[in-house]
Amino acid sequence: MSQRLRKVRIVGAGLLGTSLALALKGEGVEIELSDTNEAHLALARDLVGPTAHEGDPDLVVLAIPSSAFKEVIEEEYQLNPHSAFIDLGSTKTQSLVDIEVFPEIAARFCGTHPMAGRENGGPHGGRSDLFQGRPWLVCATSITTGSVIELVEELIARVGGIAIPISAPEHDRAVALISHLPQLVSSLLAKQLLDGPENWLALAGQGLRDTTRIAASDPELWKGILSENKEQLRPLLETLRNDLNAAIAGLDDPFAIEKIIAQGKAGQARIPGKHGGKSREYTYLPIVIEDKPGQLAALFDACSHVNVNVEDLTIEHSPGQFTGLITLALSSKDSELLSHYLRTSGWNVHSSRGPQ
Amino acid sequence: MSQRLRKVRIVGAGLLGTSLALALKGEGVEIELSDTNEAHLALARDLVGPTAHEGDPDLVVLAIPSSAFKEVIEEEYQLNPHSAFIDLGSTKTQSLVDIEVFPEIAARFCGTHPMAGRENGGPHGGRSDLFQGRPWLVCATSITTGSVIELVEELIARVGGIAIPISAPEHDRAVALISHLPQLVSSLLAKQLLDGPENWLALAGQGLRDTTRIAASDPELWKGILSENKEQLRPLLETLRNDLNAAIAGLDDPFAIEKIIAQGKAGQARIPGKHGGKSREYTYLPIVIEDKPGQLAALFDACSHVNVNVEDLTIEHSPGQFTGLITLALSSKDSELLSHYLRTSGWNVHSSRGPQ
Repeated sequence: MSQRLRKVRIVGAGLLGTSLALALKGEGVEIELSDTNEAHLALARDLVGPTAHEGDPDLVVLAIPSSAFKEVIEEEYQLNPHSAFIDLGSTKTQSLVDIEVFPEIAARFCGTHPMAGRENGGPHGGRSDLFQGRPWLVCATSITTGSVIELVEELIARVGGIAIPISAPEHDRAVALISHLPQLVSSLLAKQLLDGPENWLALAGQGLRDTTRIAASDPELWKGILSENKEQLRPLLETLRNDLNAAIAGLDDPFAIEKIIAQGKAGQARIPGKHGGKSREYTYLPIVIEDKPGQLAALFDACSHVNVNVEDLTIEHSPGQFTGLITLALSSKDSELLSHYLRTSGWNVHSSRGPQ
Repeated sequence: MSQRLRKVRIVGAGLLGTSLALALKGEGVEIELSDTNEAHLALARDLVGPTAHEGDPDLVVLAIPSSAFKEVIEEEYQLNPHSAFIDLGSTKTQSLVDIEVFPEIAARFCGTHPMAGRENGGPHGGRSDLFQGRPWLVCATSITTGSVIELVEELIARVGGIAIPISAPEHDRAVALISHLPQLVSSLLAKQLLDGPENWLALAGQGLRDTTRIAASDPELWKGILSENKEQLRPLLETLRNDLNAAIAGLDDPFAIEKIIAQGKAGQARIPGKHGGKSREYTYLPIVIEDKPGQLAALFDACSHVNVNVEDLTIEHSPGQFTGLITLALSSKDSELLSHYLRTSGWNVHSSRGPQ
């Protein structure tokens, strides 16, 4: 594929915009960043490094809430009358309706939706590999020009995504099931925790943490997404309500309970295993440390001493104890090196776990 | 604490039994393993290594489904009339009822429940650090002897768990909220995927994967757990049904939707971080660093220098980029102190985000 993307303007320095900027920068594409939130823009610019300031962008990417779409695309068209335009919004039918009032833009516009994200919005969460191996839905219309579609496909390919053509209505039905329903269910589940005594919540395990992780999402953002897609979401919520009623009615029947869990297991098993984000090939090294100032510094001094690079780490949350479990994510070579060094220096190192 | 545990018999070589055997073995405790499932027993024995064969166990651990409790504790008492007994079952009231018919065992029995597990049961999932830093609930009764409670506390301490005393009825109410409700909700959500076209499921992101992860749990196991705790679970399911009805009725009102997501976010934020401290009490300080060995060490040296305690941290970095973003979770006082110090030492510190 010939490379036509030289300069991309990204409007919105949130998670997606910042991640896209990082990814394209790594590809040698010139980046122009814009955001009405000054703090977001400043952090994103620091993360991305020097950005472009002159010349027309080949492509303008609207990485903004759908509710701002109509206003921003009109503004951007005035600023960049020769560019192509895409959005990254979570629903796709509405932007096609919105774009109809700008027939001069419509042929140069393509709705898209990268299936990548995290519950922490904002540039803080931005990373260049966010789109690696992720599906990126492309909702071209009958009037989108082939030239614009090619630009979109080039953009997606260069940041490691997988372009998947889909009609806007099918897109909206699909994301209602695989994204909007889980969001609302997670929020409703997490809401039940408002009434739980604090000492009960202190016992929370990984199951509760995982099922409620996306409940930490931004209410303002999701107000817009769910409202725009409410007609696709409604029948799914009604089916869920019927199933919940059946579960309550069946609580006295162990076999009814078993059937629900078995159906859930069968549904869960339909999620394809390897699709999406490349699992990174890290080795995980658990180290038990004393929980006091200086311990992390000493640990990272050791990492530095043997010149290994810590790719990621977690600190285990344990109520009321004075030791902590640190798990470092490393290359397998670095893990071996560090593990040996730490053990001989008296650290409490446990057996590493290989790439998962 | 003096060490009295010399030999422990573990009945049930599933995930918990095998993990406990591995952890105690590492502590130099003699292990006797038993399971009616020959394949599980063989694999567990291979993982654990040589086990003990003679002499009375100080403690017999029933790591079996609650439904088998009554039968197995009677058998085990016949075999080991001088031992103390604990179980690891997920509900606690029923075993106290069951034990009442064996008054000769009751004083030497203590119900316990380690808050550790994974959706993959069986000995292959066993790991010696499964209990490290995890709460382990201890439901002693008024007739459990002090000597037995000491043995239980020693067992928990030696495998790295944190013993937390709680009454059996409170235990069952707590786990209904933080474990059984999430399980059933995850299963009901995953059940909705049975009807989704395959090409939609291929688009699944991390949100769907996380919310449905525990739906992969064993139906047979959960049939027993949920049936035993149905009276604690019922009111939670009824509240959830009311909330779901309200959500369906409110779909046309963006502010009703926003309120649900906001309530979920507030509920999720109540799940504590380290030490049972509420995560919302931390201040988050973002620092952009060069992504190379030695940077983390230098950063933690700085933390150590001004004597602040890092409660948690995340690393965001992107393969191929030359900067990384570290976000430190600190008390607001420590955040201010550290932020000032780092800035004057030339670090690239961004504005902190307050408690969420």
